[in-house]
Amino acid sequence: MRNNSLIVIGGNGAGLSAASQARRIDPEMEILVLEQSPYLSFSACGFPFYLRGLIPEFKNLFILSPQKLEEKRRIKVLTQTRVKEIRPKEGLIIVESAPGREFSLSYQKLLIATGALPVLPPGFSLSENEFALRSAGDAEKLDRYLKIRSPREALIIGGSALGLEIAESFFHRDIKVTLLEAAPHLLPSFSALSGELAARQLQERGIRVLTKEKIVRIQNRGRRIIAHTASGNALEADFALWAAGVKPEVGLAEQAGIALGKSGGILTSREMRTSDPHIFAAGDCAEYFNPVNRKGVFFPLGSAANRSGRAAGNAIAGATDEFPGVLQSLAFKIFDLEIARTGLSATQAGQDFPGFQIHQTGVQNKPRYLPDSSELQISLLFDPRDEKLLGAEIAGKAGAAQRINVFAAALSAGFTLSQIQKLDLIYYPDFAPVWDPILYAAGEALTKK
Amino acid sequence: MRNNSLIVIGGNGAGLSAASQARRIDPEMEILVLEQSPYLSFSACGFPFYLRGLIPEFKNLFILSPQKLEEKRRIKVLTQTRVKEIRPKEGLIIVESAPGREFSLSYQKLLIATGALPVLPPGFSLSENEFALRSAGDAEKLDRYLKIRSPREALIIGGSALGLEIAESFFHRDIKVTLLEAAPHLLPSFSALSGELAARQLQERGIRVLTKEKIVRIQNRGRRIIAHTASGNALEADFALWAAGVKPEVGLAEQAGIALGKSGGILTSREMRTSDPHIFAAGDCAEYFNPVNRKGVFFPLGSAANRSGRAAGNAIAGATDEFPGVLQSLAFKIFDLEIARTGLSATQAGQDFPGFQIHQTGVQNKPRYLPDSSELQISLLFDPRDEKLLGAEIAGKAGAAQRINVFAAALSAGFTLSQIQKLDLIYYPDFAPVWDPILYAAGEALTKK
Repeated sequence: MRNNSLIVIGGNGAGLSAASQARRIDPEMEILVLEQSPYLSFSACGFPFYLRGLIPEFKNLFILSPQKLEEKRRIKVLTQTRVKEIRPKEGLIIVESAPGREFSLSYQKLLIATGALPVLPPGFSLSENEFALRSAGDAEKLDRYLKIRSPREALIIGGSALGLEIAESFFHRDIKVTLLEAAPHLLPSFSALSGELAARQLQERGIRVLTKEKIVRIQNRGRRIIAHTASGNALEADFALWAAGVKPEVGLAEQAGIALGKSGGILTSREMRTSDPHIFAAGDCAEYFNPVNRKGVFFPLGSAANRSGRAAGNAIAGATDEFPGVLQSLAFKIFDLEIARTGLSATQAGQDFPGFQIHQTGVQNKPRYLPDSSELQISLLFDPRDEKLLGAEIAGKAGAAQRINVFAAALSAGFTLSQIQKLDLIYYPDFAPVWDPILYAAGEALTKK
Repeated sequence: MRNNSLIVIGGNGAGLSAASQARRIDPEMEILVLEQSPYLSFSACGFPFYLRGLIPEFKNLFILSPQKLEEKRRIKVLTQTRVKEIRPKEGLIIVESAPGREFSLSYQKLLIATGALPVLPPGFSLSENEFALRSAGDAEKLDRYLKIRSPREALIIGGSALGLEIAESFFHRDIKVTLLEAAPHLLPSFSALSGELAARQLQERGIRVLTKEKIVRIQNRGRRIIAHTASGNALEADFALWAAGVKPEVGLAEQAGIALGKSGGILTSREMRTSDPHIFAAGDCAEYFNPVNRKGVFFPLGSAANRSGRAAGNAIAGATDEFPGVLQSLAFKIFDLEIARTGLSATQAGQDFPGFQIHQTGVQNKPRYLPDSSELQISLLFDPRDEKLLGAEIAGKAGAAQRINVFAAALSAGFTLSQIQKLDLIYYPDFAPVWDPILYAAGEALTKK
């Protein structure tokens, strides 16, 4: 390849954002993307919506095609091409395009965007009636199973956002769901209140929710499974979906001697450069910088993947454009309930801001005189010494999720509660009361401090 | 009255926010609110929703009662009590509680919160079939007319947000509407695009929209009116609603020698103090500080009234709490269309930032693969020299209005387009594509600069 060349390992959000951004800045750079699966540019977050029947065809979940990337952005793509090894000293990678067919490619710049893998507890592996959900291949496998077998009963292991979203999708397909979570409440990285509100949404629709239940063994009996829990329960279903978390896919990086961070992801600079100056990492496999506690964080989400990919693309193409890092902004919806957060969780805040406070309040999302006025639950985490916001969480009906973005902007600005309370936000009965819940919550937190 | 005393002239958002905030800070202060009408604490913004039948009773539009203010906040209220004169040198006001029954009250601190009045063009006055809409009394008069007369045809004069909202309310009551606007497009303080999108919403439902039409005369013929326009049209209807703007009610202030600002509102300091150190002003009658162009602005909206009232209450009670002013954040909805803006309008920007640029772009509010994905129109105003945001406008379906608050926070933080583009906003198919429209629009504006 030419002197000015980039090889990207991984053809999803991070990899393709980086490639596209590098192309925008440098029209001459040679750019090659290698993807081990047959799939490119898969919207994993769209899959639950596909399962609900909202998206007509599975192929709609693929955003960019190799043809489009080649034609519009002059980015070459090889799918079904697995990178076996990175040799940083020689500046080359060993690639397998078919079993036994290996070749090497030299790079000037390399981006590792290998993503994350679903986690199973030690000793477990997927049987034919068990599924995980991360890659397009995982999704396709589950989709095929649902179509061919038309199962009636599912066990979802893990009360994560993904577990809950899939529970809703199965509900819409008339599949009976039992959802298990080992922690005391669903959504363990959120507040107990959000977890309980989410549980209520599921239970009201007949979905069985079991917390403090840990799977110890799964028996596979032909077309049925039996899951045994630590408390002695035996739960039968047609199939199980594992949604118990993911971990960064860092095998290639580790083997190549590239440093990992404390979060388990690949250690990166503020411009997404790894410990090797010619190698960058972005997306779920990389450790992100969290500007609130100034620590590294693993945060496997599409927005962070795209943002960090873009930042890597900037640095690779020589642009000096600071990447502010990842606030862990996150939102999803379970039936009528929107849940969102940004900034530090209570666990994170506890480590670095030992005197931090949480103020939790219920605020109407619209004036009470409107019939569809309902309560938003807002939790604000802040440092009482300087009154600076550390994090926020909102749960409620319409308007909960979009509001978290205001807190994200406030975190980026380093605003205090008092500055947030004085923001000039919109007032219109169908959108907000005269004091928006954001302003009200900030004011309350200040008063009750 | 006692030494530590406050008299508030005007019992709506600004006056009651100020009184309540002063009480929060100073539990001992004597606080008296004087309101000339029989009504207190009226939600004018809720009235269009009441007209649509969404709010069962007119009285639901009153948020606080004199009883509640007295019991919970120890704020005394006198309604139907008109202030005739302020005598700053003597520190007293002349009050009329019934025709010919006058008395005087002395104050330590005085707050003028007299609001705004509807504007009619010179030479016009309201006949019995013509209505204006600002106060609770105006609303009640219109409500009574609609109930008693059951009119079938309305003329709305003025394509302001209020005019459009009332047009929608009349549509829901099966009243045929003709809407007139003198400017070339509806919503003249917004972009032409927003005005056209709004016009389409109305026209699709059979509401007649006439722009560049100026009323020159209205004939009142018993139970009908005929409005004649400058272009020679004669428009017949049962009644007319004037929604052609409002002006600050500054009569008392002017008479007392209190300085007015260029906007016509009462000149105020950053803490809402007038040219008389013992007299404050807040709400629609006051001129606000706009931090973007650092100029005074007239901005008759409930949120600004409450915020400035609260700031005045702080200052009156001796708190040192800086009020950042008013960004003119504003939102409303016409049928399916949300329209919102914050910061400077193009006209305002043109005065103080002559090289300013506008970037207008259409962005999907959700990933294209979702069936209810639709386009938001986002206009960003910025100063190309430092790339700082000056203002933003959004029009579109669900999610347009709440997003303007992120731009409001960005304006408060003084963010550049590049800082906005790098915000960590939520991504979830039902709420936003992987690059939120906010991020996309900021990036586009930077690229096309």
